[in-house]
Amino acid sequence: MIALDLIGIGTGNPDHVTLAAIRAMSQADLILLPRKGDEKSDLADLRRQICATHLSDLSRVVEFDLPLRDAKTAYLDAVNDWHDAIAACWKATIDAHLPGGGRVALLVWGDPSLYDSTLRIAARLGITPRVVPGVTSLSVLTAAHAIPLNDLGAPVVITTGRRLRDAGWPADADAVAVMLDAGGAFSTLDPQGVTIWWGAYLGMPHEALIHGPLAEVAQQILDTRAALRAQHGWIMDIYLLHR
Amino acid sequence: MIALDLIGIGTGNPDHVTLAAIRAMSQADLILLPRKGDEKSDLADLRRQICATHLSDLSRVVEFDLPLRDAKTAYLDAVNDWHDAIAACWKATIDAHLPGGGRVALLVWGDPSLYDSTLRIAARLGITPRVVPGVTSLSVLTAAHAIPLNDLGAPVVITTGRRLRDAGWPADADAVAVMLDAGGAFSTLDPQGVTIWWGAYLGMPHEALIHGPLAEVAQQILDTRAALRAQHGWIMDIYLLHR
Ligand SMILES: C[S@@+](CC[C@H](N)C(=O)[O-])C[C@H]1O[C@@H](n2cnc3c(N)ncnc32)[C@H](O)[C@@H]1O
Ligand SMILES: C[S@@+](CC[C@H](N)C(=O)[O-])C[C@H]1O[C@@H](n2cnc3c(N)ncnc32)[C@H](O)[C@@H]1O
Repeated sequence: MIALDLIGIGTGNPDHVTLAAIRAMSQADLILLPRKGDEKSDLADLRRQICATHLSDLSRVVEFDLPLRDAKTAYLDAVNDWHDAIAACWKATIDAHLPGGGRVALLVWGDPSLYDSTLRIAARLGITPRVVPGVTSLSVLTAAHAIPLNDLGAPVVITTGRRLRDAGWPADADAVAVMLDAGGAFSTLDPQGVTIWWGAYLGMPHEALIHGPLAEVAQQILDTRAALRAQHGWIMDIYLLHR
Repeated sequence: MIALDLIGIGTGNPDHVTLAAIRAMSQADLILLPRKGDEKSDLADLRRQICATHLSDLSRVVEFDLPLRDAKTAYLDAVNDWHDAIAACWKATIDAHLPGGGRVALLVWGDPSLYDSTLRIAARLGITPRVVPGVTSLSVLTAAHAIPLNDLGAPVVITTGRRLRDAGWPADADAVAVMLDAGGAFSTLDPQGVTIWWGAYLGMPHEALIHGPLAEVAQQILDTRAALRAQHGWIMDIYLLHR
C-alpha cells in the first residue's frame, strides 16, 4: 500500500515553506527528488536544501533522473508521453525503495494545482494523493512588487505565454498574469495603456524585478531576461499585466 | 518612522503559515489584529491562535475594532469610504502604541494580493509595505479536492460571485474560480457540461467539500451552504468550475 503526498514548497525562498509542508515531509517514508539536468540544478538544490534543513534522516530522500520530453512530436502528445514516462520512473523508484509500501512524498514547486503536472502523473498510478498547498510564484511576484493581483472586485486571468501569443489579450479581464512564457509574449500586444510587473528567479538570491508602462520597459525586460538567462543557464519568469 | 509588514497567513489552517510569516511576526514591534464583530470571530480567533503559538511576547499584539461598512451607499463608494476609515483606525492605533515609530505588522487572510484591501489601505497611509506571500483559499480548495486549477497549458479566470452573476461565464476560459460569492451565483449559469468543486471553511475543523456535475449538486450546495451558515453564523466559500 502506497500513500502519496504532493507537498507545495513555494518557488525559490526556502522560508516560503509552510509548517504543514514540513510536517508532511517528516511523516514521509520516502521523498522522491527529481533531477532535471544541469541547467536547472538550482531547482533541485532548493529541494535538497529544504530537506537538509527540515529532515533529521536524509536516507529517506532518493533522487531520480527525470526522463526527457520529446521535442519532436506535437506538444500535447509529447507531454502525455512524458507524463507516462515519469509515472513509470516514480513507480520503479518506489518499488525499489519501499517494497513493503509506505508514505511517499514529492516536493512540488509552488502550489501543486498551478501549471504543474504532478497531480496528472499521480493519477496514472491510480493513487489519490494528499495535497499540501503551497505559495505560488504569482503570490511571490505580487508580494515582491507590493501590489494587489486584482482591481477592486474585478476578475483576473491566469494564462501562459503561448496562449497570450496565440489568442491576444483575454476579453474578460483588465488584469492578466502570464506564466510559462518561453520569452517575451508580451511584445505581441499593443502596449498602449498597459502596465507590466515582471519578476524572474522570485524568492531567490538573484531575484530580478522590473515594472512600468509596457511601452517603456518591454525592451529592458527582453534585454535583462536574455542577459540573466545567459548568465545563469536558465530562467523562470512571470508577469502581471494591467490595463 | 513606521515600517509596515503585510503578512499572509493562509486561510484557516494554522499550519499553512510559512516560516517567513513566523519570522516577520517575530520581528514586529506591534501587531494589529482587527476585530470584525461577533459572527466572524472565528477569523480573529485564528489570528490570535497564530500569535499565541509563534510569539513569545503577546504584549506587542493589539486588537482594534474594524469600522463598519456603510451598506446604504453605492458599492465602490462605500468600499472607498470604508478603506479611509480603516486607514484612520490603523493610524490612531499605531500612534497610540508606537509613538516613537517601529515595525508594524498585519496578519492578512490568505495571500495579501488576492481580493484583499490591506494593500489599498496601506497606500492611504503613504507607506510601501513589505509583503509576505501566503497560501490562498484557492490553493486550499484545489488541495482539498486534489485537483489541478488549470487544464494542461490552459487559462483560468478568477472572479467574484457578483461578476459571475452580472457577466455570465467568462469568454476566455473553461476553468473559472469564484470567490466572494454572497450565495450561489453558479445557479445563474447553464449547468450543462459544467463540473463544480466547492469548499467552505477550508482548512478549518468544520471544512465542507462537495463536487460533481453542477446540474446534480447545485441544490445540495445551496442547501448545505444555508444550513452551515445558520449553524456557524457566517460562511466563507469558494469554488472552481470547469466545462
Ligand atoms: C511549471 S510552472 C509551475 C508553477 C508553480 N506550480 C507555482 O505555483 O508557481 C513554472 C512557471 O511558474 C513561474 N515561476 C515559478 N517559479 C518562479 C520563480 N521563482 N520566479 C519566476 N517565475 C516562476 C514561471 O512562469 C514558470 O514558467
Ligand atoms: C476577502 S477574500 C480574501 C481572500 C484571501 N486573501 C485569499 O488569499 O484567499 C474572501 C474570500 O476568499 C474565499 N475564502 C477565504 N478563506 C476561505 C476559506 N477558509 N474557505 C473558503 N473560502 C475562503 C471566499 O471566497 C471568501 O469570500
